Amino acid sequence: MQHLADIRLRDPFFAPRIETVHAATIPACLRQCKETGRLDAFRLDWKPGAPNPPHRFWDSDVAKVLEGMAYDLELHPSEEGRRRLDELTALVASAQQPDGYLNTHFTTVANGQRWTNVLVGHELYCCGHLIEAAVAHFQATGSTSFLNCLRRYADHVAAVFGPAPGQIRGYPGHEEIELALCKLADATGDAKYLNLARFFINERGASPNFFEEEARLHDRPMPQKLAGFQAEKPVRDQEEPHGHAVRAMYLYAGMADVAMRTHDQGLLDACRRLWDSLLATRIYATGGIGTSHIGEAIEEAYHLPLDVTYCESCASIGFVLFADRMRQATGDAKYVDALERALYNGALSGISLDGTRFFYVNPQRVDEHPPEARGKYIRKPWFSTSCCPTNFCRFLPQLARFAFRVDAPANTLCIDLPAAADGTARLDNGDLAFAVESRYPYDSRITITVWKAPARPATIAIRKPGWCHDFRCSLPGEEQNGYHRITRQWHTGEIISLDLPMPVETLHAHPMVENCAGCFLLCRGPLVYCLESHDNGPFLSRILIPEEQEFQVTTDCGLLGAPAITGRCLREELPRSHALYSTERPARVPATFTAIPYALWQNRGDDGSMRLWIRSI
Amino acid sequence: MQHLADIRLRDPFFAPRIETVHAATIPACLRQCKETGRLDAFRLDWKPGAPNPPHRFWDSDVAKVLEGMAYDLELHPSEEGRRRLDELTALVASAQQPDGYLNTHFTTVANGQRWTNVLVGHELYCCGHLIEAAVAHFQATGSTSFLNCLRRYADHVAAVFGPAPGQIRGYPGHEEIELALCKLADATGDAKYLNLARFFINERGASPNFFEEEARLHDRPMPQKLAGFQAEKPVRDQEEPHGHAVRAMYLYAGMADVAMRTHDQGLLDACRRLWDSLLATRIYATGGIGTSHIGEAIEEAYHLPLDVTYCESCASIGFVLFADRMRQATGDAKYVDALERALYNGALSGISLDGTRFFYVNPQRVDEHPPEARGKYIRKPWFSTSCCPTNFCRFLPQLARFAFRVDAPANTLCIDLPAAADGTARLDNGDLAFAVESRYPYDSRITITVWKAPARPATIAIRKPGWCHDFRCSLPGEEQNGYHRITRQWHTGEIISLDLPMPVETLHAHPMVENCAGCFLLCRGPLVYCLESHDNGPFLSRILIPEEQEFQVTTDCGLLGAPAITGRCLREELPRSHALYSTERPARVPATFTAIPYALWQNRGDDGSMRLWIRSI
Repeated sequence: MQHLADIRLRDPFFAPRIETVHAATIPACLRQCKETGRLDAFRLDWKPGAPNPPHRFWDSDVAKVLEGMAYDLELHPSEEGRRRLDELTALVASAQQPDGYLNTHFTTVANGQRWTNVLVGHELYCCGHLIEAAVAHFQATGSTSFLNCLRRYADHVAAVFGPAPGQIRGYPGHEEIELALCKLADATGDAKYLNLARFFINERGASPNFFEEEARLHDRPMPQKLAGFQAEKPVRDQEEPHGHAVRAMYLYAGMADVAMRTHDQGLLDACRRLWDSLLATRIYATGGIGTSHIGEAIEEAYHLPLDVTYCESCASIGFVLFADRMRQATGDAKYVDALERALYNGALSGISLDGTRFFYVNPQRVDEHPPEARGKYIRKPWFSTSCCPTNFCRFLPQLARFAFRVDAPANTLCIDLPAAADGTARLDNGDLAFAVESRYPYDSRITITVWKAPARPATIAIRKPGWCHDFRCSLPGEEQNGYHRITRQWHTGEIISLDLPMPVETLHAHPMVENCAGCFLLCRGPLVYCLESHDNGPFLSRILIPEEQEFQVTTDCGLLGAPAITGRCLREELPRSHALYSTERPARVPATFTAIPYALWQNRGDDGSMRLWIRSI
Repeated sequence: MQHLADIRLRDPFFAPRIETVHAATIPACLRQCKETGRLDAFRLDWKPGAPNPPHRFWDSDVAKVLEGMAYDLELHPSEEGRRRLDELTALVASAQQPDGYLNTHFTTVANGQRWTNVLVGHELYCCGHLIEAAVAHFQATGSTSFLNCLRRYADHVAAVFGPAPGQIRGYPGHEEIELALCKLADATGDAKYLNLARFFINERGASPNFFEEEARLHDRPMPQKLAGFQAEKPVRDQEEPHGHAVRAMYLYAGMADVAMRTHDQGLLDACRRLWDSLLATRIYATGGIGTSHIGEAIEEAYHLPLDVTYCESCASIGFVLFADRMRQATGDAKYVDALERALYNGALSGISLDGTRFFYVNPQRVDEHPPEARGKYIRKPWFSTSCCPTNFCRFLPQLARFAFRVDAPANTLCIDLPAAADGTARLDNGDLAFAVESRYPYDSRITITVWKAPARPATIAIRKPGWCHDFRCSLPGEEQNGYHRITRQWHTGEIISLDLPMPVETLHAHPMVENCAGCFLLCRGPLVYCLESHDNGPFLSRILIPEEQEFQVTTDCGLLGAPAITGRCLREELPRSHALYSTERPARVPATFTAIPYALWQNRGDDGSMRLWIRSI
């Protein structure tokens, strides 16, 4: 396993966001956790009748901040940071019960009700996030103190859940622990945790249905819509993604994790089917997932409304995690194409440039009217269910992992995203130190310099992005699985020059996506562009853009140095007469438009409108 | 006052619907009222603990069916019909309390709680509908029995509500009684009822706010959103229509009724302002009103969503009532232009051709996906709140009143809608019997034959429709207020020939209506057309229609003899490859389209999609 510190991004797009997480997001989320009582909940001193009872989601928020702090400590080592992290993990560990159980809500508010409502209790979900935090803490510090605490909790869970008599033959209502248990198995080398993850996955949706059995046992009404929990049938039989979007993504990531660790081809095939269906029919062009506020769910194929959408930030993050596992499991670069699309667009749009405000729902279109609805689509510092802000704390510091992968036994450095970076790939036959110089994703030219080479031949595999129609590399290589693989004896100072031409392109949606009819999406490289009223005036539906034109790429739109796209358009005039309906077509005047990367929208004031799908002429 | 029986429509559009109300709608709604307990509620034998308690809306449903039965009896006189109507009005009257009060809910379920929740209790609303039924019964039968019953109730209301000490200084949460009281004043000649209507209107929104005072008095939480009830300020100060759409329309109709009877120019000016704002910014092209399911409300200017809309059938009916009063109050034909648009489109779309199924919400666009949402937009036989079905019972039999108006003192017959009809206008200087021959709204040629003429000169005023750019009349006349007024000594057998050319036209929405951007509406004469998947295949967003073409008008689309509009279009193909997003524009193939009148959609199966606003090329 590489350490995060082995790669340092210094690209214009991600690196500043990772610094902002260090300087602003983690401190802001920690303060919120403190002020809302989420930290103090671990003191277990809440008493019935007291205000502000620990909520069943709370532990997961703290866990994600801790996980982020651990990654951040790798990137910004400091004694103060280490001390603070150790204090907080000790606080969390102090809430552990003698039998290993660790959950603030079920030890105070719902004392005595452990594991009685696995459907909605979120105990396994909170446990999963704590495990991820513990693994991150261990990797950042080398200390096993917090890891051992969570091992004891995982051991407890493994004793409670399972197929044996007296065990609960169940699985989480909110998936997440599956992928966390795989991390724990990797970190500890103990297959018990992988087996537990496999049990949760294989048991899910089996008959009789656990959630129905649980309801019967505790005399509760039968759960409605098991599909909302991906539990209406065994996961291997599920053909189409559905139900709660975040849970689905975490589950699928966990399925892929288990499949690759257990060489379970059937399970991987299920992942492939779900992936293919998702990509072919249910994902937004930004990498957003989920269309319905009801159940925060993935719905019907081709039903991708723009003005009333869902696209939770956590769902796009979850999708990146799923894509990352599929890439690991298959070695196929096509998964990185989708990962990249979500990462550079729908996942990053969820956090403001200053790192302190967040979208829970990432809108795909914000009209001028009505103003109240526009107000709904403003990033907020926190939410009562604050999964999204805390998810950014831990997601962004990991980004280098999605850009550079090391396949040590095969002595391969994979460059999935050629972001500017310095790094060292710890290969089996020696270290390969390298530097990537690029303004990716803004500019097509990239150089990779080898600063230290292993003594024997090694492979540098460079992904050929799916959007790139004219990939050029100064060194010949073997084309495989979407990669340009260069295997040779490397020498210090050797340079690979790449050119990934990124002309402005227009994307069209499948004609069954009725909300995108007559419109196109502006893209360049991995970036999806949008119109903001800030640049183009109000009522963006008035802008008609001829597709056949030489679009201009400006050097800097004032947002992280990102280039804007400009060009000719026609703009419908707001008529002097105020007739609501008229036989006269609105007059059109020539004008120019400016489009900016979707990930960076709403960073120059809150009150604007935004449009991704632009009327075509 | 003319009797309904004085005019007999035999046009192809309304006349069959009026027959269907007689043969199917009224019997079906009566059966529903019986089966759901609404009729038996008037026996007042519900006891606490018994099932199916009379609901506070119920009386209004029965009242509207009775009102419709009375109109229907004028059109279809029969002893059996008269006997049935007398039985039912006697049943209703039997529930009257010694002090005149008459309400099933508040005499059984909420006994002792009369007038304690005027905001949401619907007592005055139910009272208003009963008054309308009683006036209709009186006009149809000449009997004052039911009229006197409701006079006693109105007297009771007049004693309870008013500015004097001990009276409730309030007004209804759901307006309607205002216009009903004006009818009662007209029918009885007693100005007391007009004064009560004026009191309700003038008091509305005055400070201190009655609804807040009522909440204080009964120790209830303060009402939120007084604007939802048109009660946040006095009605004369309200500049823009807002709040619950049906209530707003009934209120404005009542305001116009009071304004014209009391020569209150200030109140009429308020009506004009609200009208102008509604027409300039908030009405759908079909005459639909209301955009939000939350509060069934009229919202922001230019916010007219198509896929998630409201447009309650009752709101379009209420709009017709408002327009009718504005026409009466001003003599201006422009109000009939709007009335006609709503009548021939958004109001009639609410009822199936067989007269037994109804829309509560009239969608403006139904996409192919998701199928569940499409299922929401299927006409239903009944609703728990069943205001719409019962409203059709009384609305459709009155339609002749909106087509032909008699201004007796001015000896004028106004032909507002030149629908085929036989009629007699009872003018002050004698009867003017006439026949209109036309296939309006399908055909432009119209003849009006005078069969009996008054002994002295009289005026026939023919409306020049706002949509008609080339009005032609065989007789010269004076142009005034949008009417072609022919004043002369008429002779038996004299014929007026009209031609109202109705080419196919395309309407464009104001560019601030973002949901209509890039699309147009097909119209011909007063009819608005739509595409149904039944004729054009699924995914109607694939259809692009060149605006510049010779549209064809077929003779009969198979629905009430209505002509269809056909023409050339391009249709995007459903690509063989299944990529959700692609740099390739969907291929377009030449095709033809068929559009049918919106009012007649969803009468050839329930499972189709529908589109009013069509992509333009």
